[in-house]
Amino acid sequence: MYKIRVYVTLRPSILDPKGKASLGALHNLGYNRIKDVRIGKMIELDIEAGSEPQAREAAEMAARKLLANEVMEDFEVEVMEAASR
Amino acid sequence: MYKIRVYVTLRPSILDPKGKASLGALHNLGYNRIKDVRIGKMIELDIEAGSEPQAREAAEMAARKLLANEVMEDFEVEVMEAASR
Repeated sequence: MYKIRVYVTLRPSILDPKGKASLGALHNLGYNRIKDVRIGKMIELDIEAGSEPQAREAAEMAARKLLANEVMEDFEVEVMEAASR
Repeated sequence: MYKIRVYVTLRPSILDPKGKASLGALHNLGYNRIKDVRIGKMIELDIEAGSEPQAREAAEMAARKLLANEVMEDFEVEVMEAASR
């Protein structure tokens, strides 16, 4: 079993209203050293696969088909560990 | 300027309905090798600070005060790079 993280982020050209709202709230709390906030998703997958490349490929397919909207989002896949099960 | 990532995840004991829904959808698409899905947030911060520890501390404070709900979420801070500005 492999534990894989998929990071889904809005493309830089896409406005991030949640990020802007958080930035405003942080400034209201006095955290003025924070200059930008962008909010994305981190999806943790447990994948049964014979090898790490196979697990990575399954995660990438899942990201393309469902987890990320490739019109406005980018994604990265990171293999965290080969969990022993 | 430092670029920092804050990973916010639901505590393992907390039910993750979005994750369960995604798991069901992935199984409907035929991705049966995916055994679990948990969805969290990845927040990217640009922080002006004199040192990496200062930047990390500001990110942790922002996470405690606003970005994570510590009643049901855990968070991790990762310093990605010291951006030259």
